Amino acid sequence: MNLQPFTLAIFGATGDLTRRKLYPALYNLWRENQLPKDFSVVSIGRRDISREEHHDAIIRSMERFSRKQLHTRHELKDFLDRFSYFRLEFHNSKGYGELKSYLSEVDQTWHTQGNKIYFLAVAPEFFPIISDELHDHGMAENIGSWQRLVVEKPFGQDLQSAIALNNDVRKTFPEENIYRIDHYLGKEMAQNIMVLRFANTLFEPLWNNRYIDHIQINLTETIGVEGRGLYYEKSGALHDMVQNHALQLLSLIAMEPPIALDTESVRDEKIKMLRSLKIKPGDVVRGQYDCDEKANILGYREEENVSPQSNTETFVALKTTIDNFRWAGVPFYIRTGKRMPQKYSEIVVTFKKLPGVLYFEKEDLGSNVLVIRLQPDEGVYLQFNAKRPGTNNFIQPVSMDFCQNCHNGFNSPEAYERLLLDVMRGDPTLFTRWDEVEYSWRFVDQIENMWKEDRGPTPLYAPNTWGPQKAIDLMQRDGRDWLRFQRKEVYII
Amino acid sequence: MNLQPFTLAIFGATGDLTRRKLYPALYNLWRENQLPKDFSVVSIGRRDISREEHHDAIIRSMERFSRKQLHTRHELKDFLDRFSYFRLEFHNSKGYGELKSYLSEVDQTWHTQGNKIYFLAVAPEFFPIISDELHDHGMAENIGSWQRLVVEKPFGQDLQSAIALNNDVRKTFPEENIYRIDHYLGKEMAQNIMVLRFANTLFEPLWNNRYIDHIQINLTETIGVEGRGLYYEKSGALHDMVQNHALQLLSLIAMEPPIALDTESVRDEKIKMLRSLKIKPGDVVRGQYDCDEKANILGYREEENVSPQSNTETFVALKTTIDNFRWAGVPFYIRTGKRMPQKYSEIVVTFKKLPGVLYFEKEDLGSNVLVIRLQPDEGVYLQFNAKRPGTNNFIQPVSMDFCQNCHNGFNSPEAYERLLLDVMRGDPTLFTRWDEVEYSWRFVDQIENMWKEDRGPTPLYAPNTWGPQKAIDLMQRDGRDWLRFQRKEVYII
Repeated sequence: MNLQPFTLAIFGATGDLTRRKLYPALYNLWRENQLPKDFSVVSIGRRDISREEHHDAIIRSMERFSRKQLHTRHELKDFLDRFSYFRLEFHNSKGYGELKSYLSEVDQTWHTQGNKIYFLAVAPEFFPIISDELHDHGMAENIGSWQRLVVEKPFGQDLQSAIALNNDVRKTFPEENIYRIDHYLGKEMAQNIMVLRFANTLFEPLWNNRYIDHIQINLTETIGVEGRGLYYEKSGALHDMVQNHALQLLSLIAMEPPIALDTESVRDEKIKMLRSLKIKPGDVVRGQYDCDEKANILGYREEENVSPQSNTETFVALKTTIDNFRWAGVPFYIRTGKRMPQKYSEIVVTFKKLPGVLYFEKEDLGSNVLVIRLQPDEGVYLQFNAKRPGTNNFIQPVSMDFCQNCHNGFNSPEAYERLLLDVMRGDPTLFTRWDEVEYSWRFVDQIENMWKEDRGPTPLYAPNTWGPQKAIDLMQRDGRDWLRFQRKEVYII
Repeated sequence: MNLQPFTLAIFGATGDLTRRKLYPALYNLWRENQLPKDFSVVSIGRRDISREEHHDAIIRSMERFSRKQLHTRHELKDFLDRFSYFRLEFHNSKGYGELKSYLSEVDQTWHTQGNKIYFLAVAPEFFPIISDELHDHGMAENIGSWQRLVVEKPFGQDLQSAIALNNDVRKTFPEENIYRIDHYLGKEMAQNIMVLRFANTLFEPLWNNRYIDHIQINLTETIGVEGRGLYYEKSGALHDMVQNHALQLLSLIAMEPPIALDTESVRDEKIKMLRSLKIKPGDVVRGQYDCDEKANILGYREEENVSPQSNTETFVALKTTIDNFRWAGVPFYIRTGKRMPQKYSEIVVTFKKLPGVLYFEKEDLGSNVLVIRLQPDEGVYLQFNAKRPGTNNFIQPVSMDFCQNCHNGFNSPEAYERLLLDVMRGDPTLFTRWDEVEYSWRFVDQIENMWKEDRGPTPLYAPNTWGPQKAIDLMQRDGRDWLRFQRKEVYII
C-alpha cells in the first residue's frame, strides 16, 4: 500500500501513552518499511526539552517498549532526524500560531504535502481546547491535503458530557476526520473475531441461540491503579473498560453479519447490537480492591490522588442480554477488574449441550467451548469431547489450541501499530463512530443510574482474588462459572 | 468391570497374527490388570512344539511387539504358566476329542468355569471345518457357561461364498456368539468417531449435506504384499481393505444417530447406511504396483506366490454416494493401496465454503477441514481461516491439532486389546454382524461385476506414487484433491 506523506503532531508527547505506545509503534512500522518515504513527527509538550533530550527520550522508550531489537544510533539517524520537539502551553492561543508556522516549515523540509495527523494524547479536558485552536488557526481545513484528529479515551464522562464534547469537536473537525481510538480494536485477535465468524463454515452456522449457551468476556489485570489515581477517580472500571473495550468486543462477537466489510456497514451492525442491549438492576456487581497488609499491597483508597472515602469501582461484573432473534435467551457476561489473580483478556463462547440422548443421556459431559484469547496469548482454543484412550468408554474433554504468538520468535504487531497505520491511510474501520460512543454511554448511564439509587458503599475485595463474592454468585445463580482455560503443552487433560 | 473366568483357545497359534497381535495384546491387558484372576490360554497349532519352545516364542513375540516393557522371566511366571500348547491337525476329527479332554483339564486347573473363546487365527478355508468339529464334539454348546467363536477376515470371497460360509458357521454357533473381527473398529480413533459426532455440539449440527462438501477415507500403506501373496492373490485391495475396514469407517462417519448406544441399535444404523450406498461404473479406479529396478523394488507380479500374469489390484480408489436426506449430493471418496509414499489412515471431512459474500466475495479462501487420524498419529486436526498476524487483512488457513499419542510416554492400547477384552466380556458392538458383512459384499460385488465387464489388465503404477493417474483424475474432475494434512509443530502455516 502506498501511503501518502504526512506530519504527525503528537500533543502530550512527554506523557505515558506516547512513551509506551506511540514511539515504539512508529519505530516498529519504520523497521518493517510500512511508513511512507516522506514523513515527520512533531512532539508537542509543555516542558522545555532540547532536541537532544527529546531524541534520548525516544531511544529510551524504544529500548524499553519496542518489540524489535534497537538499531545503533547511527542506523537510527534517518528515523530520529524526522522527530522534533515543539513547546506549547495548550491553553496559550498565541502558541498555536507559532505551531502553525513550525508545522509549515517541517512540511517543507520533509515534503509531507500538508497532510497532518493531530494525535491528542492528553487529558480529555484539553480535547475541545486543542481542537478549537487548531480550527481557529485554520489548521483543521483540508485544502489539497488532509487533516486528521486522533482522540484517546475517555470520550466524555457520561452521555451528556460526551454529547457536549462531541459537539465541540465536531464544530472543528468533520466526523470522517475524527479517529476515536479504542486500542482493543487494534489487537490482532479482536480483528480476528470477524474473520473467525464470517470466514469459517465451522462457526458461522452455530453462532446463535440455538447452539450457544452463553458468552463471557473477561478483561482482568493484576496491577492496581498505578499512579493514575487522578484519571481513575473520575473514571472507574465501568468507564475505563466496559464503556469502550468490553462493549466493542461484545459488538464484534454478537453483531449481525454486515452487508459488506466496509467501515460504515460494519459500524451500522455494531450500532444495532448496542441498541439491543438490555440490563437489569440485579445484574451488575461492582467492587473496589482492599489493602493486603501482609503482602504489602495498598488498598485503592490509599493510592496516590485517590480520596480515602472513594467509592470508585475497580471491578465490574455484569450480565446483559441482546433482544433480537439471534440472541434472545443467551446471556452475555462481562468481568473486568484490577488486582485480579491473573491478567488476561478472553472471550469464552460456551456451546449448549446436545439433547439428553446417547452420550448425554447418563453422563454429565462438558460443553464445547471456543475461546478467543486477546492477551497475553493470542489465539483460539477449542474444547470438545472425545473418548479417553484405553479400553473403557469414558468420555473426557480434550482441547486444541491455535496460538499465534506462542511460536518462537514471532511477535504480533502492537495494537497501536495497526491503528496508527489506519489513520495514515485514512481507514476508520477500527475506530469508534460517534453513534457507537453514544449508545455505549446510553448503556453505561443505565448502570450509573442503578448505582445512584443504590447508595451503599462499593464492596471491597481482597487483592489477588476474583472480586466480590457477588460476582461469582452472578454466574452461579445461573448454574455457570467464570472460566479460564489455560494453554496446555499437553493436550490430554 | 468384573470379567468372568475363561479359557482362550487360539487356532493357528504359530501364525503371524497370534505372534504379532494376540500374545502382545494379552500381555498388555495382563500388565494393566484387565484380565480376570482366573484365565488360561491354549495355543493350538499343527507343529510339534514343546512347552519350553512355546513359552520362548511367546516371550519373543512380546519383546518385539508389546507396547509395554517386558518383565523378567521370573515376574512373568504367573502369566506364562497359564499358556500351554496343544498340537492339532485341523482336519483330524479324532484330535478334537483329545482337545476337548485337554480343555476340560485346563478348565479344572485354572478354574475357568467352562467358558471358552475359540479364536480362529487361521486361513478362511478352515473356518467351517473347525467350527463343525467343535460343534460335533459338543464344544459349541453353552451349558452353564459360554462358548464364543472369533473369526478373522476375510469372511468369504464374495456375497455368495460369504453366505455359504455363514450358513456353515451358523449351524454350529448362534449369531450372538460369533465375533467377526474388523480390527479397524478396535482402533482408538475409530471408536472415537461416534463420540466426536454425538457428544459435541460443534460437529453434530454441521454433519450433513448443507455444510459438508465431501468426505474422503485414505488407508494407505508403504509396504508391498510382503510374503502374503497366497492370501492376497485371492483377495486384492478391494477385499482386503474396502469390503471391511473402509466400509466400516464409512458407516461410522455417515450413519444416522442410533436410538441408543447398544450394539443392535448401532448396527441397525450401519446397515441402513450400507444399503443406501450407490456407485457408478466410472467411479472406481484400480491399480497394481509395478517394479522399480533402480530402487530394487519388486513389482507385485514378481512377488512370491503371485502369478506373473496376475490381474489382482493392490490399489483401489472410488467415489460413492449415499442416497438419503442427510447425504444426497455429498460424495464419499475411498483410497487404499500398497507401495504408497506414506502410510496413513485418515478420514478427511471437508466443509462447504460459506456463500460468496464478505470474506468469500473476492478471496479464494480455503475450506474448513476436520481430519480424524487413525494412524500413525491418533487424533483430530482442524483447519480454519484466520487473519494473518500483521497490519494487513490477509486471511490464511491455520490449524489446531489434538494428538492423543504424540504425548511423550503415552501408548494407545492396540486394537486387539480392546477387541479381545470385548469378546471376554461378551460385548459384540465393535464386531460385524452378519448383515453388515452381507451388505458390504453386495456393494463390493457391484464393483467386481463392473470389473468383469471391463476386461483390460489392471493398470500399473510406480512404487512410491499415489497410484494410477486415473485415481487423481477421479478427484480432479470434481474439482477436488486427495488430501493429507501433516501434523505441525508450528501452528502457523
